[in-house]
Amino acid sequence: KMDPAEFRRRGKEMVDIISDYLENIEQRPVFPDVEPGYLRALVPQEAPEEPESFDEIVRDIERVIMPGVTHWHSPYFFAYFPTASSFPAMLADMLSGAIGCIGFSWAASPACTELETVMLDWLGKMLKLPEEFLAGTAGQGGGVIQGTASEATLIALLAARTRTVKKIQAENPGTDEEDILPKLVAYASDQAHSSVERAGLIGGVKMKMIPSDDKFAARGEALRQTIEADKAAGLIPFYFCATLGTTPSCAFDRISELGPICNSENIWMHIDAAYAGSAFICPEFRHLLNGVEFADSFNFNPHKWLLVNFDCSAMWVKKRADIVGAFKMDPLYLKHDHQESGLVTDYRHWQIPLGRRFRSLKMWFVFRMYGLKGLQQYIRKHVSLAKEFESLVRSDQRFEISAEVVLGLVCFRLKGSNALNEKLLKRINDTRKIHLVPCHLSGSFVLRFAVCARTTESKHIQFAWKHIAEIASQLLQEPRQ
Amino acid sequence: KMDPAEFRRRGKEMVDIISDYLENIEQRPVFPDVEPGYLRALVPQEAPEEPESFDEIVRDIERVIMPGVTHWHSPYFFAYFPTASSFPAMLADMLSGAIGCIGFSWAASPACTELETVMLDWLGKMLKLPEEFLAGTAGQGGGVIQGTASEATLIALLAARTRTVKKIQAENPGTDEEDILPKLVAYASDQAHSSVERAGLIGGVKMKMIPSDDKFAARGEALRQTIEADKAAGLIPFYFCATLGTTPSCAFDRISELGPICNSENIWMHIDAAYAGSAFICPEFRHLLNGVEFADSFNFNPHKWLLVNFDCSAMWVKKRADIVGAFKMDPLYLKHDHQESGLVTDYRHWQIPLGRRFRSLKMWFVFRMYGLKGLQQYIRKHVSLAKEFESLVRSDQRFEISAEVVLGLVCFRLKGSNALNEKLLKRINDTRKIHLVPCHLSGSFVLRFAVCARTTESKHIQFAWKHIAEIASQLLQEPRQ
Repeated sequence: KMDPAEFRRRGKEMVDIISDYLENIEQRPVFPDVEPGYLRALVPQEAPEEPESFDEIVRDIERVIMPGVTHWHSPYFFAYFPTASSFPAMLADMLSGAIGCIGFSWAASPACTELETVMLDWLGKMLKLPEEFLAGTAGQGGGVIQGTASEATLIALLAARTRTVKKIQAENPGTDEEDILPKLVAYASDQAHSSVERAGLIGGVKMKMIPSDDKFAARGEALRQTIEADKAAGLIPFYFCATLGTTPSCAFDRISELGPICNSENIWMHIDAAYAGSAFICPEFRHLLNGVEFADSFNFNPHKWLLVNFDCSAMWVKKRADIVGAFKMDPLYLKHDHQESGLVTDYRHWQIPLGRRFRSLKMWFVFRMYGLKGLQQYIRKHVSLAKEFESLVRSDQRFEISAEVVLGLVCFRLKGSNALNEKLLKRINDTRKIHLVPCHLSGSFVLRFAVCARTTESKHIQFAWKHIAEIASQLLQEPRQ
Repeated sequence: KMDPAEFRRRGKEMVDIISDYLENIEQRPVFPDVEPGYLRALVPQEAPEEPESFDEIVRDIERVIMPGVTHWHSPYFFAYFPTASSFPAMLADMLSGAIGCIGFSWAASPACTELETVMLDWLGKMLKLPEEFLAGTAGQGGGVIQGTASEATLIALLAARTRTVKKIQAENPGTDEEDILPKLVAYASDQAHSSVERAGLIGGVKMKMIPSDDKFAARGEALRQTIEADKAAGLIPFYFCATLGTTPSCAFDRISELGPICNSENIWMHIDAAYAGSAFICPEFRHLLNGVEFADSFNFNPHKWLLVNFDCSAMWVKKRADIVGAFKMDPLYLKHDHQESGLVTDYRHWQIPLGRRFRSLKMWFVFRMYGLKGLQQYIRKHVSLAKEFESLVRSDQRFEISAEVVLGLVCFRLKGSNALNEKLLKRINDTRKIHLVPCHLSGSFVLRFAVCARTTESKHIQFAWKHIAEIASQLLQEPRQ
């Protein structure tokens, strides 16, 4: 068994292993060449009876693990949206692992809870969130780290459900919850992430998708019409999840139109800005967040684009009482002396899981070691790389841009059939030199090019475009099938 | 901004910082002496504009963080249940952070998914789980890493809800889901964790607590009576969450009695063995798991007692189709070539969040570097330390043991009033030399003594008992108030 002295040695070896991995990641094919089930054949069928050495395990990293890794931090990775990685965040995670506290209540580790509240205030100020969302020392709002945006969407929906049920019961004493739930209806844009629809399924409520406009944005008028029809049919609208930076095309729902409608209808507006939210720390992108003042809750993922390693999804609410009230339970083994003091936050009431890691350390290290200016530079670099790729696409008559390029995502396609573009994408990914994923926009099969890695530079963009254009040329020269 | 060369240096400094912390943790008071709000005064109100140096941050670890940390890995920490910490797990987490893949689908990083499936098979075999729970190459079951036991409880409840609704709809075509949901009823022991009741709230279904027997165990007869009454009232029983090792007293629901009832009534039986599950790798404790063959799903937390750092909650199901079917959604940006091949697992369908870290690396490192024998030794050591503490309590006539000591938890109290025991606990915790939390058992206020830290030895148990006995002596000598 490993003692502290051996850990000192092995820990330093591991620092070198991961430094080597990240320094040389460009040399690896970005997408693995393995078939499903490849790994089972490479390892024993059972755990060993006797201990093995660390050296044996290190050897197996290259033999067993690396052949099957999709290298999300390769500068040739342009798929999905980015997931963040930075050295300060990794250092903080090492410390978090060693402290190893479970911060479900203030008393379970005060520093874990308090640093989180303060870091969410720091970040809220970077975004220039309305004061109401900040905790400060006397605020009614505040922030929390969720694992993922999906959980934030769900928590907000559950809080809205409880708030609405309580309101109806207050207005109509004696009404049963089970008579209310079947009438509740939630909304989101038809471009919203699949996890929004899933939140409705989990919460056991109806969820309707609002048709988006020709820029893939949800608009006030469409929402208003749906609400009117639903109310006329006896339903109770209670929740709207707006998206800033949709997954297919990075479109922005018009929250300045949608928000006032939600406010006047007592509908909880949650904003999911999972990817785009990080950009709002730059003054030139902050206008995209205008309308947040109408929201009840707001969420984005520093673990996507703000250099804080997964998991770190930042969520703010205007009224902590709403979210805590959704399902507060206090068994004796979780009670503590300071519980009722008002200054104290027990984050277990804000989330689905009970346990939670000391994740705010990652934010603290990253915000301090980059500084606001360094983080802004990072966002700007990615946006300019996306614009560079957009120009390359626009300079080639065979291609078209499929949606406005606002941040780091470029949606594009060959002018022509969906089948042609499906073939193009398959060939691109089969070469394993770069990696992209597709989306559907208005019935068209579209390629998504997202600037992802921290180390992506102009040369990688130029390489990627040259590679795509060459494959397109080959494809277009082939006889039609 | 930190470059790879600086990370090599700073990473090694961090290895020394965390080694120093863990080697000297005994010297720190186990529970912090801070008031709510202490941290905000120690840090700036906003993030810095310009980058700060790593040295500044390191200085602040002792100044800002450590004064507010509850030291869960101090050998004087006996509160809640343990949270795991081991050097191999920390090394694996470093690697996981560097790879930084998001394993929501097989294609998003095949190694991340495949190692997880194989590690859950390894662990299932260590527990001697019935074959049906293993994935193998052709099984219908299999395992997944959830973040916490709370999430496993919820996922199982949602899967049960969907299975039941589908079954009723198949038998009664045209039945609306919203007519079924209000009739569904779930069950758990009155000793079950608060997260079980919460899962019912989230899922929008009734949850009833089955009265436990004089050993704090749920019994078949009590469940049967409740089911009969509920069916007679027109309700539809659909889910029972059994607990092996309850949070208050580490009691064991009688799953051999409860399971056959659930099976014959088409009730999904989920087993939550969050803490106790790790012990089942020892042949002498495996009988506590007898009856698991009746369960639809089983869960425990290697991150509690099996030396795998948080988060790592292991969950198995007999039928993967049940859990995937609960809310499978496949937007185009998440589809991939191998999706329909059967050999492939897309774990996003098994969990609440979409994103997921490469957590199985921690299991792989720990299982290999301890070996099954090393893990068994670790469990046995903790159980024997608990028995040692039990003997000390029994040797003092002023005290009584409040529940059978089966594993690493001892429930005890001074013979006398609840007020007396509340005062005893408060004094113990106020000294900050050891840390415990209480529970209620049959109306009595009881102190819980859980063997927690990896480094707890007999001398710490002896110290803790001497300390408790002394405080009791002082307390009992004071004039009654």
